Amino acid sequence: MESPLLDRIQTPGDLRQIPVERLSALAAEIRAELLDIVSRRGGHLASNLGVVELTVALLRTFDPPRDRLVWDTSHQGYVHKLLTGRRPLMRSLRQDEGCCGFLHPEESPYDAFAAGHAGTAISAALGMAAARDLAGTGERVVAIVGDGALSCGSSLEGLNSVVETTRDLIVVLNDNRMSIDPNVGGIARYLNSLIAGKGYNRFRSYLSENLPRVPGIGPRLKKLLHRLQEAVKSLILPGAFFEGLGLRYIGPLDGHDLPRLCRTFERLRDLRQPLLVHVITEKGRGYEPATAAPDRFHGIGEFDLATGESNGDSHGPTFSSELGKLACEGAERDPQFIAVVAGMCQATGLKAFRQRFPQRIHDAGIAEEHAVIFAAGLAASGAHPMVAIYASFMQRAMDYVYHDVCLQQLPVVFCLDRAGIVPDGPTHHGIYDLAFWRALPNLAVLQPADGGDFALLFHAARERLAPVILRYPRASSDALLGTSRQPLVWGKAEVLRDGGDLALWGVGREAATALAVADELARQGIAATVVNPRFILPFDRDLARDQLDRGMAIAVIEDHCVAGGFGALLREEFADHPYGGRILVLGWPREVVPWGTVPALRAKYGLDPEGLAKRVAAHFRSFPQPTAARGA
Amino acid sequence: MESPLLDRIQTPGDLRQIPVERLSALAAEIRAELLDIVSRRGGHLASNLGVVELTVALLRTFDPPRDRLVWDTSHQGYVHKLLTGRRPLMRSLRQDEGCCGFLHPEESPYDAFAAGHAGTAISAALGMAAARDLAGTGERVVAIVGDGALSCGSSLEGLNSVVETTRDLIVVLNDNRMSIDPNVGGIARYLNSLIAGKGYNRFRSYLSENLPRVPGIGPRLKKLLHRLQEAVKSLILPGAFFEGLGLRYIGPLDGHDLPRLCRTFERLRDLRQPLLVHVITEKGRGYEPATAAPDRFHGIGEFDLATGESNGDSHGPTFSSELGKLACEGAERDPQFIAVVAGMCQATGLKAFRQRFPQRIHDAGIAEEHAVIFAAGLAASGAHPMVAIYASFMQRAMDYVYHDVCLQQLPVVFCLDRAGIVPDGPTHHGIYDLAFWRALPNLAVLQPADGGDFALLFHAARERLAPVILRYPRASSDALLGTSRQPLVWGKAEVLRDGGDLALWGVGREAATALAVADELARQGIAATVVNPRFILPFDRDLARDQLDRGMAIAVIEDHCVAGGFGALLREEFADHPYGGRILVLGWPREVVPWGTVPALRAKYGLDPEGLAKRVAAHFRSFPQPTAARGA
Repeated sequence: MESPLLDRIQTPGDLRQIPVERLSALAAEIRAELLDIVSRRGGHLASNLGVVELTVALLRTFDPPRDRLVWDTSHQGYVHKLLTGRRPLMRSLRQDEGCCGFLHPEESPYDAFAAGHAGTAISAALGMAAARDLAGTGERVVAIVGDGALSCGSSLEGLNSVVETTRDLIVVLNDNRMSIDPNVGGIARYLNSLIAGKGYNRFRSYLSENLPRVPGIGPRLKKLLHRLQEAVKSLILPGAFFEGLGLRYIGPLDGHDLPRLCRTFERLRDLRQPLLVHVITEKGRGYEPATAAPDRFHGIGEFDLATGESNGDSHGPTFSSELGKLACEGAERDPQFIAVVAGMCQATGLKAFRQRFPQRIHDAGIAEEHAVIFAAGLAASGAHPMVAIYASFMQRAMDYVYHDVCLQQLPVVFCLDRAGIVPDGPTHHGIYDLAFWRALPNLAVLQPADGGDFALLFHAARERLAPVILRYPRASSDALLGTSRQPLVWGKAEVLRDGGDLALWGVGREAATALAVADELARQGIAATVVNPRFILPFDRDLARDQLDRGMAIAVIEDHCVAGGFGALLREEFADHPYGGRILVLGWPREVVPWGTVPALRAKYGLDPEGLAKRVAAHFRSFPQPTAARGA
Repeated sequence: MESPLLDRIQTPGDLRQIPVERLSALAAEIRAELLDIVSRRGGHLASNLGVVELTVALLRTFDPPRDRLVWDTSHQGYVHKLLTGRRPLMRSLRQDEGCCGFLHPEESPYDAFAAGHAGTAISAALGMAAARDLAGTGERVVAIVGDGALSCGSSLEGLNSVVETTRDLIVVLNDNRMSIDPNVGGIARYLNSLIAGKGYNRFRSYLSENLPRVPGIGPRLKKLLHRLQEAVKSLILPGAFFEGLGLRYIGPLDGHDLPRLCRTFERLRDLRQPLLVHVITEKGRGYEPATAAPDRFHGIGEFDLATGESNGDSHGPTFSSELGKLACEGAERDPQFIAVVAGMCQATGLKAFRQRFPQRIHDAGIAEEHAVIFAAGLAASGAHPMVAIYASFMQRAMDYVYHDVCLQQLPVVFCLDRAGIVPDGPTHHGIYDLAFWRALPNLAVLQPADGGDFALLFHAARERLAPVILRYPRASSDALLGTSRQPLVWGKAEVLRDGGDLALWGVGREAATALAVADELARQGIAATVVNPRFILPFDRDLARDQLDRGMAIAVIEDHCVAGGFGALLREEFADHPYGGRILVLGWPREVVPWGTVPALRAKYGLDPEGLAKRVAAHFRSFPQPTAARGA
């Protein structure tokens, strides 16, 4: 693959050496490079293909890193990385110790701000603008926000704050009429009407229909009417919504017309006023499989470039795909059952549910706060809602879980997907939320070990008619091997295997890890009891106490930060037990866990079965074994 | 005080028996009753005086509890309570076991939804509307939202979702041009322009200036221009912002013209479409001291009805008032220092700071999410921001503290006021947040014991240039009595008093409680060491270990939920210490702690000095005392 133009770009300044008429050839080279990288490494594809021209135009016109380009969410930052000296690094995209899948100032001074969750760029850019205004340094600050992220509460709070904060900010609205799933809500419709020019066109057709009927229209009246038309245009067409908030609206612009984008940004660069530049882009642009299925190519694993087909294992059932089935069962069994998602219908496994029960699902868009309060409102009127959101995104709605759901004891079941380490890295790791949940009143927290367990816990949670959180990772939900399963009793754990030397409590899917650790320990002559806790809150205190009473060590294996996790809960609860010190907590440390493949991260942190077995065995051998335990 | 009309209202239905022309007399009686209650009990006054007519009109027109009236925040629900059978109960407003200061379905079926934090009503009402649409029950759902709460991210997410969710919802915008402090932001300006009719008036004056200059305007042209004017009016005047979001805009209405309010709501009651009704009210209406100083009368203690002067102790310094001084010092010492608040400039003690350093403070309005990201943006551009927010409100920005501040290790100091139990009740108790903070990487958490301590910790946090949280309660910051103080060492606790039998760790202001408990224990012959931990994260592990090594019990006294608090952290950390079981945690239980006076709540939960001393003494006597400890 030859890239004669791209080869010349070491820093954004090099872009200015390429004449405008060659820029579209450069864009084609960038697309080819993107496709080559992402087809090998996986990653966010469709959105990056959509912003090739926009990124080139911004980097060519502005003067980063002095000027600050703040990309919202920043999953669409690959083009930015390619053009800011990270083309070689991009070859290790999302690999261990490799290139981050998002922007981060630690990786490059051209990354003005780190992101991963949507809806932060406008507020962050406003902060930068305020700091600049105070210091008088005069650099330009540009926030680039997708239409999906624009309807986040935080983005709207940011927009609302522009007028009070600065007279000098550019917000670029990258409008591809999707966020991850197709975009929803009033603002999305409004943007579409802007593109269609509806309000203004309605007015103009009103004029052209009526004017011919008026007798005696002379040139002066025509001129007046033309000026009237212009005045009205300035009031109606250019985004009354944004103008109402104090931003001057410019657009819509074709986001793939590079010469025009460059010309426009050059003109705007020297305007010192709050601007909203509305740019229309096509998600997946230039790669037909991605334009045809932008949601599938939003975030994707390795794939075949020629066909667009995914490579690798045709994986079996996951907790996400199980949720799709369970939600359908819920809807069949309970006419009050309603599903709520926040812009992630497909990723949370509910696409088929939406097709079967279109009246029983609400997509809040990227608006976790609204999703949770909305569910509380549903429940307050007798419905039985389920809310499916990623664990890390749910951190945005923590107050609403407390204030709107728990305090009113409303029957809402929260299904927290991606609860655990994920390849996307720190912003997406779902390993902190439990720390908060465990302090909240009226809340139960459950974690299933496999698909069968998920079904039992899901329906028990549903029928409980109380606030319940179900946590589960992005992982296979295959049945645990070689275990006889026990029926569900609320608040009771399940013993998967009897050993007697010590107990391994594998939280949720970590029960599978615990079984593997037990196998390894068996080879070392240590007979481990393996427990699937099922319940975090309320947990099976009797079983834990009984094991400790017998002097057994308890090793808690969990896909959560050790601070505030289930192991911490056990240690705290049994600190006054004579053998409370034998509780060992095996989870992620209280530090920033980087991106990478999950197996590599586990190995690095000693959380793979081998590493765990080693740590458990050492712990076991560090204190005398009561002979009584062996007999249990 | 005679209230012949109010005496006749047992349920909202009784309102219909009162003829329209007598309603303003009823309104006067309600105001007198409100003033009498709040002057005796304290509470939210100005906002309730503002919604008297609006509440009467809504309850008279709609059919609650079948129709659902959802009051946002619900601090303005006193009138609603008076008219829904709770007039006698209101006499015990905010007292122990008395009337809740907010709405709550457990208190009355007329309370459709509980609140306390702002910005939830639209989303909750949408949930109710969706449940109704699914069930086909046909009741009306009305959300009543203040202009301050309208600019919350969650409200804006809700507004954005209306058009996708239902064709049948009424949002009443109660616009008093303030939230708690005067309202800020683009939407507030936009609402003011609606009231002034600016866009439309601009167009009309353009027409009237230009039309006379045109020769030969005949009646047909005049008619055309009139129709044109109407067409433009329908496009510009009636809230393009709301119409853009799919709501029909109606207003602005005079919120104190009861006959017109009743007529309008009667007309709207039978419209089945998403409506936004813009009602203009005056905060404090009918009570001159409150209209003159609505912020002081937003939430107030007992006061003299004749003068409006506050009764009771002229209290000394509080942590909030100290913050005002410390922020000024910060600004004097550091030109990069900037303060950020979220609609609570006065309550967080920063009013004087704002007067002195108007360029160095940003008020985000009720938008905690924006406030935190904005601060991150400031820090990313070299400023040194401080963010002052109530601990319970900060629950809304937990993800941003993690995602935007901690992950980038940005120098933001968070000052969490009201961290502890407050009279307002469960929605406002700041007793859960620490559970989450303690899991976050790169974050320090500090709690000062008194004003002097606050100064030391505040400036140390500021100079640290890293993410730091300072927590402190709504309480006196008077110097701790009879103690010699120690200089600040990062991560080190301060021993306030040497005892040696056991150690009392009083977290933050609870150091004062611990001293009182120590006095009580001394009377029982137990010599307590008293520790001011200062640091929660990183805490003084060495001191705790040393005490435990000597067999001393450690009693942690904290104004936080025991689950996920500092005591839990100590128990977890020292579970494997031989004396780890001697750590006793004395805080609030993991349950809903009600409203009431703080001393009464403490007594009820055994957290007053007497109750604490009893529990500590019993704990102390439950295990043998190592003689070594005494000598320490």
